[in-house]
Amino acid sequence: MTDDTTLDGYRIAEEPTYHADGDEVAFYDAAYAARLPVMLKGPTGCGKTRFVEHMAWRLGRPLITVSCHEDMTASDLVGRYLLGRDGTHWQDGPLTMAVRYGAICYLDEIVEARQDTTVIIHALTDNRRILPLEKKGELVQAHPDFQLVISYNPGYQSVLKDLKESTKQRFCAMDFGYPDPAIEAAIVAAQAGIAEDQARRLVQIAGKSRNLRGQGLDEGASTRMLIHAGRLMGAGLDLRQACQLALITPITDDADMRLALSAAVDACV
Amino acid sequence: MTDDTTLDGYRIAEEPTYHADGDEVAFYDAAYAARLPVMLKGPTGCGKTRFVEHMAWRLGRPLITVSCHEDMTASDLVGRYLLGRDGTHWQDGPLTMAVRYGAICYLDEIVEARQDTTVIIHALTDNRRILPLEKKGELVQAHPDFQLVISYNPGYQSVLKDLKESTKQRFCAMDFGYPDPAIEAAIVAAQAGIAEDQARRLVQIAGKSRNLRGQGLDEGASTRMLIHAGRLMGAGLDLRQACQLALITPITDDADMRLALSAAVDACV
Amino acid sequence: MTDDTTLDGYRIAEEPTYHADGDEVAFYDAAYAARLPVMLKGPTGCGKTRFVEHMAWRLGRPLITVSCHEDMTASDLVGRYLLGRDGTHWQDGPLTMAVRYGAICYLDEIVEARQDTTVIIHALTDNRRILPLEKKGELVQAHPDFQLVISYNPGYQSVLKDLKESTKQRFCAMDFGYPDPAIEAAIVAAQAGIAEDQARRLVQIAGKSRNLRGQGLDEGASTRMLIHAGRLMGAGLDLRQACQLALITPITDDADMRLALSAAVDACV
Amino acid sequence: MTDDTTLDGYRIAEEPTYHADGDEVAFYDAAYAARLPVMLKGPTGCGKTRFVEHMAWRLGRPLITVSCHEDMTASDLVGRYLLGRDGTHWQDGPLTMAVRYGAICYLDEIVEARQDTTVIIHALTDNRRILPLEKKGELVQAHPDFQLVISYNPGYQSVLKDLKESTKQRFCAMDFGYPDPAIEAAIVAAQAGIAEDQARRLVQIAGKSRNLRGQGLDEGASTRMLIHAGRLMGAGLDLRQACQLALITPITDDADMRLALSAAVDACV
Amino acid sequence: MTDDTTLDGYRIAEEPTYHADGDEVAFYDAAYAARLPVMLKGPTGCGKTRFVEHMAWRLGRPLITVSCHEDMTASDLVGRYLLGRDGTHWQDGPLTMAVRYGAICYLDEIVEARQDTTVIIHALTDNRRILPLEKKGELVQAHPDFQLVISYNPGYQSVLKDLKESTKQRFCAMDFGYPDPAIEAAIVAAQAGIAEDQARRLVQIAGKSRNLRGQGLDEGASTRMLIHAGRLMGAGLDLRQACQLALITPITDDADMRLALSAAVDACV
Amino acid sequence: MTDDTTLDGYRIAEEPTYHADGDEVAFYDAAYAARLPVMLKGPTGCGKTRFVEHMAWRLGRPLITVSCHEDMTASDLVGRYLLGRDGTHWQDGPLTMAVRYGAICYLDEIVEARQDTTVIIHALTDNRRILPLEKKGELVQAHPDFQLVISYNPGYQSVLKDLKESTKQRFCAMDFGYPDPAIEAAIVAAQAGIAEDQARRLVQIAGKSRNLRGQGLDEGASTRMLIHAGRLMGAGLDLRQACQLALITPITDDADMRLALSAAVDACV
Repeated sequence: MTDDTTLDGYRIAEEPTYHADGDEVAFYDAAYAARLPVMLKGPTGCGKTRFVEHMAWRLGRPLITVSCHEDMTASDLVGRYLLGRDGTHWQDGPLTMAVRYGAICYLDEIVEARQDTTVIIHALTDNRRILPLEKKGELVQAHPDFQLVISYNPGYQSVLKDLKESTKQRFCAMDFGYPDPAIEAAIVAAQAGIAEDQARRLVQIAGKSRNLRGQGLDEGASTRMLIHAGRLMGAGLDLRQACQLALITPITDDADMRLALSAAVDACV
Repeated sequence: MTDDTTLDGYRIAEEPTYHADGDEVAFYDAAYAARLPVMLKGPTGCGKTRFVEHMAWRLGRPLITVSCHEDMTASDLVGRYLLGRDGTHWQDGPLTMAVRYGAICYLDEIVEARQDTTVIIHALTDNRRILPLEKKGELVQAHPDFQLVISYNPGYQSVLKDLKESTKQRFCAMDFGYPDPAIEAAIVAAQAGIAEDQARRLVQIAGKSRNLRGQGLDEGASTRMLIHAGRLMGAGLDLRQACQLALITPITDDADMRLALSAAVDACV
Repeated sequence: MTDDTTLDGYRIAEEPTYHADGDEVAFYDAAYAARLPVMLKGPTGCGKTRFVEHMAWRLGRPLITVSCHEDMTASDLVGRYLLGRDGTHWQDGPLTMAVRYGAICYLDEIVEARQDTTVIIHALTDNRRILPLEKKGELVQAHPDFQLVISYNPGYQSVLKDLKESTKQRFCAMDFGYPDPAIEAAIVAAQAGIAEDQARRLVQIAGKSRNLRGQGLDEGASTRMLIHAGRLMGAGLDLRQACQLALITPITDDADMRLALSAAVDACV
Repeated sequence: MTDDTTLDGYRIAEEPTYHADGDEVAFYDAAYAARLPVMLKGPTGCGKTRFVEHMAWRLGRPLITVSCHEDMTASDLVGRYLLGRDGTHWQDGPLTMAVRYGAICYLDEIVEARQDTTVIIHALTDNRRILPLEKKGELVQAHPDFQLVISYNPGYQSVLKDLKESTKQRFCAMDFGYPDPAIEAAIVAAQAGIAEDQARRLVQIAGKSRNLRGQGLDEGASTRMLIHAGRLMGAGLDLRQACQLALITPITDDADMRLALSAAVDACV
Repeated sequence: MTDDTTLDGYRIAEEPTYHADGDEVAFYDAAYAARLPVMLKGPTGCGKTRFVEHMAWRLGRPLITVSCHEDMTASDLVGRYLLGRDGTHWQDGPLTMAVRYGAICYLDEIVEARQDTTVIIHALTDNRRILPLEKKGELVQAHPDFQLVISYNPGYQSVLKDLKESTKQRFCAMDFGYPDPAIEAAIVAAQAGIAEDQARRLVQIAGKSRNLRGQGLDEGASTRMLIHAGRLMGAGLDLRQACQLALITPITDDADMRLALSAAVDACV
Repeated sequence: MTDDTTLDGYRIAEEPTYHADGDEVAFYDAAYAARLPVMLKGPTGCGKTRFVEHMAWRLGRPLITVSCHEDMTASDLVGRYLLGRDGTHWQDGPLTMAVRYGAICYLDEIVEARQDTTVIIHALTDNRRILPLEKKGELVQAHPDFQLVISYNPGYQSVLKDLKESTKQRFCAMDFGYPDPAIEAAIVAAQAGIAEDQARRLVQIAGKSRNLRGQGLDEGASTRMLIHAGRLMGAGLDLRQACQLALITPITDDADMRLALSAAVDACV
């Protein structure tokens, strides 16, 4: 069975820009060569999703991304019977499609999902590489090109909601953080379509905001938020207005913290 | 595919009156120009819904509004299979309609919804701008005119029920409060169809009621409640009766607080 | 579309007796004239339901009453798809029928319902006056005669189960209590079909029982219980027997409280 | 519509023996004459169910009994749509059958049921006497002969699980307890088919067991348990053996309590 | 209607070995003669299930056994509608089959089941002997040969999960424990097919293990575990190996407790 | 009925490498000879699954493996009715297939499953060896070759989630741990395709990591993780990189613990 048409909608046509910040590409290449499952660790909006898109493009593989959530069940991943004119027929879920036809399957924030979704991947992540479709009574042997990738934000997990040790141990893991300032400014300039010096000022502000983490802020401004601010500047707002809208008001309602962030902006104008 | 007919029921034919009280229109224009998702922050009944209606009218876009609640699931937003004469067929939910045909989608009090509804919007609010219909196996690329707007009342959120940091960071945010007294009086007079000086007296009473917030009242009288009182006066009640019915009895059962509010009314007759 | 036949079963043919005890009729008239939603506040069995019936009769509008409960969902109010010979077809719920054809809809003890039922009414209770049938993809614009009424017992609400502030603020509110003794005696005499002096004795007993509220009784005897006692007397029991059956045994199992209530009865024989 | 055939299975052909122990028959007659709902209060196994059977027989009315439980929903009482060859059709539940065709409906231990079942009876227990079938969109006006009866064990209710005050107030209430010793002995002798003096000994033992209530026993031996013991004696066991099997081993595993109960038996041999 | 064929699969063809250890057979005979429901009390694996099988064989009645669990609902016992070619049809559950055709129904560990399953048996366990199939609208009068038996492990019940007093009082109860050593050795020898002296050594070891109950062990070795050990010896393991596999490793992971149990084994080799 | 074709997909064609580390093969042989159910106890990734695969191959039996999880119900194991063109038809679940046609059924981490799944196996694990399909009304007598195996990780169980004593007592149990260093190095070399001395270094590192268990690590590196590291070395990474990716980043985010583990790696380069 060829995977050429089924997964066509999941192929990445153009190279997603990605500015490497270490050995992550070589590491991922090795893990994919060994077809080992990979876990990407790092905070919100630092570029994990973009990295997977870049690697899928680089390796010429289709990419199926699933944002996990509290009410997601194994059936949402694996598939289910639907009722049609002639009774029920089976419909593959996104994970089954990836397993069957050879895509990279990216489960974003898998910790959010219900436990049955994390157990369903066990037989896929050891030497068996099979996906049991229990409701259908089928064992799907993974396509040679299939790989599983998950993301994980260590800052978020609580005791009640964490990956089981027996799940963690099945993955190779790579750390991600915010990029080096020069690289981050290049990313922001490129993706928001603004001048490099404007982007550098946004990165400076982000740095100050990240230092406030844990002192009243849950997280500092992410690269994504800087791109938002840059795009608002492209749409005609000045730096102060753009930072107010994109970097300050979204993340805090505390008056003191807002003052501190505004001062950080003023210092960079 | 044209959106001219599908969303016709969601177009706003007449200009919704809106009295701007700052830069909010310019800010929103920039966010829409950059197609960034927007979060409106502020208390109940201060005009957030009306502002979105005004902007949708101004931008000539259809508006699909969804009031979120505790039992709302991702399917309620995205769509579901219905069983018909020839088996199941898919029916787009309100969010999918907006994404597909290019409306502004306004999710009111999204924090109330179950978590799967907040995660479903992740891929819509980053550079991908896609809505995965997992149950249907379809990736909907957002229409160029689509925009997502949510509302958020900072005074209400508890630790247990708040937006995830990774959701907040995806939005530009704007603060809303009760309007300036002169503007509020104009709004009340216009919408309740009463004289300006009557409206001013209602705004004065509202001011006193808002000062009692946190001293026994959860919230003061909102602009909406003043319009209610005004309309009751238009239906023949006097100021005291109208305030009793619309401003006092609904929000408190505490005898002292009722006395304080009645005294505030008496002082303005 | 005419509402003459659909709601025929909900029209009130004969005038429900109601003894006004203040301005409540004028207040309600004004709220209905302005088509504002109304909240009736007061204890169990004091006549709130009868008042709505009376007003619906007076205004010549059909009345659809729904007793809310913990397991009631938005679908129970709004409607649902039913499976028929030719696939699913939509069936309007009681609220949708009222909205579409112009009835007064009375949601009794709405606080008991699940939160999705209270949010569903938001767009009905502001200037939009629309009911979104999300599952059907229809926006129902309220009939000009439609009005929403809810009841609320302030003595019952706990922190966990109360109307949200953003719901309360959408309603005009009116307080109800037990009627004035002379009026209450007239009501009991009329509805139980007993002599006025017997009714007066029952009202006297009720007064004593209401004074015990908070000293071991959750609530005193309601007007409805007095009518029950009166009807038992009409069926041949004497005052002591009737009060035992209808006023004392139902509300307490505490021996001291029963003695106190029996003494109150003896004092009125 | 006649009720002669539908409820035939619920008619009581032979008189259920019942030994009156006070005014309960006269009280019930009056409540039925006034068609008021009745609540029977008392401990397990003291004869409440038998009393209702007796009264239904006496009044010549069919009796529909429902044992309520934690997972019972309103649909279990009221009815539901079933899927047949030609789509769904409605099936009346036991309460609807009673309301429609004029039976006495006895809801045993209604406190155990989910709250929607207790609210469903509200409109049946005030002057409206209607049962709204919300899912079917039908208002069933109660048959003139219909009456609602519930049982309630005051010793069992916890704060979390009790009838709402607004439910209690809708019922006339009657207390039940274990019968007078002479009457109880007659009941046991008659129903177990043993000699009066054997029955008297069992009643003596029960008295001692009831005195231990609250001192390590949740409840003493009920009349039903005495009948069980009597029937075991009829099947060949001696008094000690029968009491062991029917009165002691079922209700306690505490060694001291078992000794105390055995001693009570020995004293009566 | 004859029960000869429907329940054929539930008839016990060969006598299940049972070694009586007291009056239990006579007691059960009397309870069955009076058709009273029976509760078997005792620890895991002491032979309660085998006793019921023996009695069913002795009385020539079919036996339907149901292992209860937390997710079991009344429908699992009573039956449900299934969807077939011509719409839904009713399928009797195991309890209904027993009631209708006259089997002994044994509900093993009924306390584990949801409460609706325990209430469903109420009308079966008093003088009515009926099973109401509420969903089907049928009252099944119990076959004259029907009897209900339940098991109950007093050591397991918590405050949260126990039989209601009103359920316990409906049953005759019999205590079970581990058999007398000589009898237990005979049972083990017979069922595992080993020599009597080997069986005696296993019983000795079990005695020591049972003495450790409450000192770090939840329960000692049951008769069933001794039979397992015996069968492993029959398959070639020596006493130490068999006890390790069947008596020690399954019940504790505590190093000290394992040492104590191993020493107990060594002392009996 | 022959089992030759139904279970063909579950036969193990090639011998799964397994390095015995004690008497486990002989023990398992005896338990299988006596057809006793077996429980494999031990930490994640130490080879329990591989051992069962080896034994199934050795005994020439098909193997059906089910990874249990929190949302797994009895129906997922036993089977369910599916709706087809001609109404519902029954589909055997994995356990039923094993029972009916004579496979070894391996329930991995059964403690994770809901309780109804653990009770369903009770009648399979005593002398009856039957599986009741309650929903289908069928009693499946186990095929003579059928055996049940479960895994259990003693380090994971909490008070809330543990096997019931009455379940544990039904199994023979065997302990598993990480293999002896020489054996483990041979396994890693063979399965990762690297040189023995490289494998020995990985085993050395694992030893140090296992010593940190309980001092900040939940579990040390498992054999599976060593194989992952080995395969990454095969894909071109050096020892430090491979250990970082496969042994350190996946299991801890603690900076000190990461330093300690890196130092352990450095000491073995």
